[in-house]
Amino acid sequence: MIKGLDHIGVAVKDLDASLRLWQDILGLEASEVETLEEEGLKIAHLQLPGGVSLELVAPLSSRSVIAKFIAKKGEGLHHLCFEVEDIQRLGKELEQKGKSFLPGYPRHGSRQTIIAFLHPQAWSGVLVEVMEKKEK
Amino acid sequence: MIKGLDHIGVAVKDLDASLRLWQDILGLEASEVETLEEEGLKIAHLQLPGGVSLELVAPLSSRSVIAKFIAKKGEGLHHLCFEVEDIQRLGKELEQKGKSFLPGYPRHGSRQTIIAFLHPQAWSGVLVEVMEKKEK
Repeated sequence: MIKGLDHIGVAVKDLDASLRLWQDILGLEASEVETLEEEGLKIAHLQLPGGVSLELVAPLSSRSVIAKFIAKKGEGLHHLCFEVEDIQRLGKELEQKGKSFLPGYPRHGSRQTIIAFLHPQAWSGVLVEVMEKKEK
Repeated sequence: MIKGLDHIGVAVKDLDASLRLWQDILGLEASEVETLEEEGLKIAHLQLPGGVSLELVAPLSSRSVIAKFIAKKGEGLHHLCFEVEDIQRLGKELEQKGKSFLPGYPRHGSRQTIIAFLHPQAWSGVLVEVMEKKEK
């Protein structure tokens, strides 16, 4: 059902400072910074050997969900994103088991993907994102 | 410097319940449960496609560091563990850059490894474990 781990989301206050830290000291290669105005976020990926990346996510304003997360829990690990074969089928299978996606999902994500989030209360406190790639 | 991501640590209250959840609903394969009396922990791994695993970590008593983490932040994502080539060399390189391992590290971990932790305050709030495998 799960094809693999795609990325690990990390909530940070200052994207540039965090990028420098992980890049310079651990030698990880960073992507371009993307600004997602609608979500109130700036993100960048640090590529790890083996295909998984760290997604650094910083808030553009104090109203962003990431700003609220940092205010409550501090900077740090935020979510896991798994690539799945078929997000619609997963949604149906979850419903049969009494689970569901968060309201409003699945929906289009960036880079030709369909994404959905699962509620952390239902998953040992872990915010789980699932993602299907539309272009193979 | 980093060979890859080895596992993602998740702090959970009830190891059996969390194992069932991730196993039954997302179809992940689980390892045996290990009890680490000295650390006051019970752990189990869920294998993800691609070689990375989720390490579910539950406290054996309220004095365990995991119990304290859960009391403060709730269940959820706890640490990232990267496999490295040479943990001693990494320690020296970190020192040259004004960083260091937590006191008492590196030391022997389970399963023929040497491990060390880095302070989350120095790493965007992320608790980073590094691990060198002694047997190749």
